[in-house]
Amino acid sequence: MATVKIGIIGAGSAVFSLRLVSDLCKTPGLSGSTVTLMDIDQERLEAVLTLAQKYVEEVEADLKFEKTTNLDDAIIDADFVINTAMVGGHTYLEKVRKISEKYGYYRGIDAQEFNMVSDYYTISNFNQLKYFVEIARKIEKLSPKAWYLQAANPVFEGTTLVTRTVPIKAVGFCHGHHGVLGIIEKLGLDKDRVDWQVAGVNHGIWLNRFRYEGKDAYPLLDKWIEEKSKDWKPENPFDDQLSPVAIDMYRFYGVMPIGDTVRNSTWRYHRDLETKKKWYGEPWGGADSEIGWKWYQDTLGKVTEITKKVAKFIKENPKARLSDVMDNLGKDLPEKQFVLELERILDPERKSGEQHITFIDALLNDNKDRFVINIPNKGVIPGIDDDVVVEIPATVDKNGIHPEKIDPPLPQRVVKYYLRPRIMRMEMALEAFLTGDIRILKEFLYRDPRTKSDEQVEKVLEEILSLEGNEEMRKHYLKK
Amino acid sequence: MATVKIGIIGAGSAVFSLRLVSDLCKTPGLSGSTVTLMDIDQERLEAVLTLAQKYVEEVEADLKFEKTTNLDDAIIDADFVINTAMVGGHTYLEKVRKISEKYGYYRGIDAQEFNMVSDYYTISNFNQLKYFVEIARKIEKLSPKAWYLQAANPVFEGTTLVTRTVPIKAVGFCHGHHGVLGIIEKLGLDKDRVDWQVAGVNHGIWLNRFRYEGKDAYPLLDKWIEEKSKDWKPENPFDDQLSPVAIDMYRFYGVMPIGDTVRNSTWRYHRDLETKKKWYGEPWGGADSEIGWKWYQDTLGKVTEITKKVAKFIKENPKARLSDVMDNLGKDLPEKQFVLELERILDPERKSGEQHITFIDALLNDNKDRFVINIPNKGVIPGIDDDVVVEIPATVDKNGIHPEKIDPPLPQRVVKYYLRPRIMRMEMALEAFLTGDIRILKEFLYRDPRTKSDEQVEKVLEEILSLEGNEEMRKHYLKK
Repeated sequence: MATVKIGIIGAGSAVFSLRLVSDLCKTPGLSGSTVTLMDIDQERLEAVLTLAQKYVEEVEADLKFEKTTNLDDAIIDADFVINTAMVGGHTYLEKVRKISEKYGYYRGIDAQEFNMVSDYYTISNFNQLKYFVEIARKIEKLSPKAWYLQAANPVFEGTTLVTRTVPIKAVGFCHGHHGVLGIIEKLGLDKDRVDWQVAGVNHGIWLNRFRYEGKDAYPLLDKWIEEKSKDWKPENPFDDQLSPVAIDMYRFYGVMPIGDTVRNSTWRYHRDLETKKKWYGEPWGGADSEIGWKWYQDTLGKVTEITKKVAKFIKENPKARLSDVMDNLGKDLPEKQFVLELERILDPERKSGEQHITFIDALLNDNKDRFVINIPNKGVIPGIDDDVVVEIPATVDKNGIHPEKIDPPLPQRVVKYYLRPRIMRMEMALEAFLTGDIRILKEFLYRDPRTKSDEQVEKVLEEILSLEGNEEMRKHYLKK
Repeated sequence: MATVKIGIIGAGSAVFSLRLVSDLCKTPGLSGSTVTLMDIDQERLEAVLTLAQKYVEEVEADLKFEKTTNLDDAIIDADFVINTAMVGGHTYLEKVRKISEKYGYYRGIDAQEFNMVSDYYTISNFNQLKYFVEIARKIEKLSPKAWYLQAANPVFEGTTLVTRTVPIKAVGFCHGHHGVLGIIEKLGLDKDRVDWQVAGVNHGIWLNRFRYEGKDAYPLLDKWIEEKSKDWKPENPFDDQLSPVAIDMYRFYGVMPIGDTVRNSTWRYHRDLETKKKWYGEPWGGADSEIGWKWYQDTLGKVTEITKKVAKFIKENPKARLSDVMDNLGKDLPEKQFVLELERILDPERKSGEQHITFIDALLNDNKDRFVINIPNKGVIPGIDDDVVVEIPATVDKNGIHPEKIDPPLPQRVVKYYLRPRIMRMEMALEAFLTGDIRILKEFLYRDPRTKSDEQVEKVLEEILSLEGNEEMRKHYLKK
């Protein structure tokens, strides 16, 4: 049993923070720990703190909270620093997207083959990458023994950047591999009898092993595809694990793309809204269409609003229980997912599905467990450079992280035709960020199928570099 | 001293064959050898034989000739098989290009980022790749100790294919690295005091080492660029070693692209004729524009014509000397290059610049020499798969091929941003060829910036597969 201090950067993300708090309350080995909630948005931070404290009180857990708007406070004395912050928030992303579309880059210049996730900006997200390095350097200086847990996107670029440049213990997390459970559920299998493995890079992972009761389970998936895929309809924009595009990618690559990997296909599936609808389902055309992404942003907005409302209610009714609040505010609850999410958080038996707290427990208390995490490759996936962060299964215990042998290996098509081109764009994004050589950003765009002229590239970059808040990015790239 | 039998497949290529014959006559160690000229075009074959015999007689060399239209004859008892054949010839290439352009693929579907050379077809060239394997298998069966020298394009795909699939001694040749001499000459340097090295893949090689009298020579190049590049004008469509595009690539990648590498840039430099002219110079826009390539084809046609004419003259005037012929037919000689070429062939002191004969001499007679050749990487260029054929400098002697250490290493930009994407397309072309999975050809085109719809891909492939002569290709890809 260990008490620790965990700093959460970007803690104003209510759902994420409450998931972690809920997981902590359900982890006896971490009882007595301190959570430092850090965010620059005071109002959201306050709301999250209220809810977290209420929750801890109700489940009678032993957790202490601190809140701060100062990054250092979240790092000093911390054993673990979890970063989920998005610098500039969605507002910045949408500004860049709007400028991009003005110059012919549908869904933004960061939307690229194998990187279509709408908040996964890699080349125009200077402030975000810079923040990653700033946090890592502060950890190196203030709490050099602390672990850095990268939860903020872009996890692939971010974790690779930090592990290459700052000598601290860093690991990236994503819940995308839960897509496997979606398949297991859809096929009506007992998840405890499924032997699965995924490997790749963040948002580019593939189900290399899928066995049921000792036998290859892919034929069961094939049967489902044959018999049931024609009736498939998405329940929400993110419901794409068994969409036509996932099946099409599976047929070509030989194994299933898992989680956000399905979103990260080629332009063939993303050319325009109509194409997206065909492949990702009606009516949204997936999470990354103009409709699907609006749905997501609206939902996020409602969640923020409801969080504040619930927090206010609790403040005004200090004796109320969280379950009462749900009944009281039920009519305002925005979307089915949020209700399910709250139910899950309130359920004393279930953990959130986020891996961070279980990871900490495994490391500190030797509660050995299996994770899918992002760490430098170092030979785990042959054919990929050692210093590229890959997303792979690993067991974690007090001795550290033990990557599994990837068996069977990823198909060559996945490595050569999918991962490598994705990795190349990561390399360009990081080199541009590290050197400030604007020619790399330009080269990135010269190779973009939407680019028709040099002028288009010059103009879109110039306008993005002129955005308020991008003064430092501008200086970085135009220093010569 | 060794007498050998050398089979030349595609020997109707007059200039190439005469270069080899000329080199042989200037290589005392190979005196007494036999050359088997093989081509399916009887008329061209006959003409080449006449000229070769005449040449040998004039220089009083000891060489025997055989001619044949049968592939086996060129392989049985051969010690070296040199393949320079282009199955279907330019006629096939132009048919495919025409179909491609009808569907929106300017310069053909095989024209791709880093592969713009107009007779370097990789995905629509099924019969060519098949012929490579057929020759290699025949060597394995009929002359298993013979060396296979790949001179026909695509050298990169061809040599990689053969070395991966047939267990014979194979090596690929190209003269592109002579571009280094072009730079040396332009800078007015003494080539014997230049220490240079190039590395990459065929038509994608880079001047990683360039030293003059023990010092970095790049500053001399920079000076030339600063002072003289503005006055640069191409002398012919192929004169691009110091063109604006070469300089632009040098500035981005940090080292000079050498030889045909300059042609293999991104679409940024190739979008249309106007763009090509800007980067590759007026009036042709480089060798791979519609104008530049027509110039090349016209020149080839004239060379073929003149070869036949000269052969006819020799037959009718058996006592004439080749130099007389040049005087007699001078007015008909098509282009400056051809005259220079003939002068070089006739010059007893100079070798052709083709490496094949010198390579054979080095191997057999231990006349140790330096070559730039195409062989499986096996770690020579870090970050590239072992079984990818790379173009690198090597010394050759009786003990075999000894690759040089690439020092300094290629810049990371070259490896990550140039070679790897080029290699990916090679892999796709070879996998398509080997498996017959048409989805790979489609995937190749889905990722093409010129592709706007699935229908476009279906149509262009269907029409290419319907071409006369592509019956077997059609069967291969549509067998399911």
